[in-house]
Amino acid sequence: MKKLNLLELPYTELTAFVGEITRRSISEFLKLHVRLYTADLREATEAYLLRSGKCLRPSLLLLSALASGAKRPEQLLPAMAAVECYHVATLIHDDIIDHDELRRGKPTVHALIASQAAKRHPRLVSDKARDYGVATAIVAGDILFGYSASLLSMLTRHFPIGVVESILSYQSCILHPGLLLGEQLDMELEMMELSKVTDKSVEKMMRLKTGLLLGFAARIGVALGERKPLEDSSLATALGMAAEDAGVAFQIEDDILGLFGEAAQLGKPIGSDLREGKPTLLMVNAWSKATSAERKRLKYILGNQRLTESDIEDARAIVERTGALATCRRRANFMIRQAKLACKAVPDELARQALFSWIDSLVKRSH
Amino acid sequence: MKKLNLLELPYTELTAFVGEITRRSISEFLKLHVRLYTADLREATEAYLLRSGKCLRPSLLLLSALASGAKRPEQLLPAMAAVECYHVATLIHDDIIDHDELRRGKPTVHALIASQAAKRHPRLVSDKARDYGVATAIVAGDILFGYSASLLSMLTRHFPIGVVESILSYQSCILHPGLLLGEQLDMELEMMELSKVTDKSVEKMMRLKTGLLLGFAARIGVALGERKPLEDSSLATALGMAAEDAGVAFQIEDDILGLFGEAAQLGKPIGSDLREGKPTLLMVNAWSKATSAERKRLKYILGNQRLTESDIEDARAIVERTGALATCRRRANFMIRQAKLACKAVPDELARQALFSWIDSLVKRSH
Repeated sequence: MKKLNLLELPYTELTAFVGEITRRSISEFLKLHVRLYTADLREATEAYLLRSGKCLRPSLLLLSALASGAKRPEQLLPAMAAVECYHVATLIHDDIIDHDELRRGKPTVHALIASQAAKRHPRLVSDKARDYGVATAIVAGDILFGYSASLLSMLTRHFPIGVVESILSYQSCILHPGLLLGEQLDMELEMMELSKVTDKSVEKMMRLKTGLLLGFAARIGVALGERKPLEDSSLATALGMAAEDAGVAFQIEDDILGLFGEAAQLGKPIGSDLREGKPTLLMVNAWSKATSAERKRLKYILGNQRLTESDIEDARAIVERTGALATCRRRANFMIRQAKLACKAVPDELARQALFSWIDSLVKRSH
Repeated sequence: MKKLNLLELPYTELTAFVGEITRRSISEFLKLHVRLYTADLREATEAYLLRSGKCLRPSLLLLSALASGAKRPEQLLPAMAAVECYHVATLIHDDIIDHDELRRGKPTVHALIASQAAKRHPRLVSDKARDYGVATAIVAGDILFGYSASLLSMLTRHFPIGVVESILSYQSCILHPGLLLGEQLDMELEMMELSKVTDKSVEKMMRLKTGLLLGFAARIGVALGERKPLEDSSLATALGMAAEDAGVAFQIEDDILGLFGEAAQLGKPIGSDLREGKPTLLMVNAWSKATSAERKRLKYILGNQRLTESDIEDARAIVERTGALATCRRRANFMIRQAKLACKAVPDELARQALFSWIDSLVKRSH
């Protein structure tokens, strides 16, 4: 693979290619390890990695590297595999925490292992099977977090050890505690009363939980492209922050889609966030500008498991009437503009355009 | 602190000192990070670290380093803190998996956070509080796994980067997936019928789940003492394997104690393993040599939640009659002898004696 060839590909072909080579390199890596595992642990570890995901993070890493002078994209593969493994580790633990049953159209890891154990051991009571599914998913997530570090260590074959060390250190000192704090904030915000949640705290949570890992992918890409430690590269910081902004914009759009979109496009029923009582930026904004009658209505709607279509209609109307919808759209657009502005620091025209496409594909998801 | 001074201390004073400096250096490290956390996440992360544990792993690391020429023990502190953080991360996740409610005499992390959340949010139903406790404990364990890597990275201040890299790489490629496979095997063995469990598979599980991390502590110590990458040191391998053997011996003794010891010494009720249906080496051995009447009795006893004192008496009698008790004691003693034999490679008399004391204190626990 040559640099120009890759960036000259139409964007969708480029990302399909990235998905393919990332998955292939992950499964080669896993092959060495999982043969020692039990069947359940192997399945738990491989499940999400082998389902076709969008590989947004490996794509961003590759594009950021190409934008900063990477000549041998194949040398980036361990890093691309690492960010995807890391992402999948967070998904496995997040799915346990959120009690989600579906991921990428199939059962989540804990649900999958529980249902198989129940079939295999007919005497196993269903509580035990569920616990075993959760326990195996905890273990599988832990393992994949670790694989991400193993994969990054492999970069020392082709890159200066100081560069790799700066990447590992960013991962363990900034990305990892930050992303997990985001996970925790997400849980804690959900337990708070809407009137006490500020839009600042919601944005902080989104930046940590979603933005930080996207930013990490961009930062690694630049560090490897420039063959410089992360902290010495201004482009790494610029693209890193751009990716974080894009991540926040994506989350805002996702919340909007959750109320105004189509179930098929969203991948879950419209209004799920309302039923779960999730204090999205949309809701926090609407609350702050709502009349007391509207607040009463919102209180009834949020966290109510038995919402009707007309309740959801009412929530939509309040969100529009208060201007919360417009405010959130503006905020997302501002973040996107900011992200694109940062990409202007990239001198290469093709690479810059590809980064723009990445941002657009993140925010305007069409699947 | 000077090398000779440390090794000249009586062993119990030495380990008390290690406990103190390890905990102090962990809390200094945490101070930098946890101030950004929510109160619950801070508490979940700090809980076990601040309870006085035995710090067996930091002690072994220090002794192994002193045994291989370390001149500045204070430079080892990040590594000592790292192995303790790692150990605590595994405990937090293990306690969720095992549904344990007590650890070091106080509530386990998930139980602690659940009970506090229930108090703080009286409207929270108890299921939700429990889920929140588990979720927070998952996050806290994840964070501590990562801190272990951050702490190890700090070693580059005083040690060659190649040495540190070999340690990080052992952690992510061997220790981490291996220990977690041990955790998984433990769960899966518990679901199997006793007649299908082999003593080989139980020993493998113990070596992975308990031995590997002890071995890692010894290996790191030697690598830092000799300032050589792990893979280039025969002493690192020798002491690493010795520590693994000692870990298996400890587990066997622990299983014996679980049936023949005193509740106070064990820290949990006698017979817990029987109630949980845990296929210990003792049980697997007894089964293989039991008469069919004894097997019938064992089948009734194992996994039975309502065991009487006389059931436990019967289990003890079968374990003694079949020779399983003697076989397991022999096996543990063989492992201990093997571990001590390996320590003979240490030239320094004081260091060698201290390692012997470490092995004895691990196996003959008196708390």
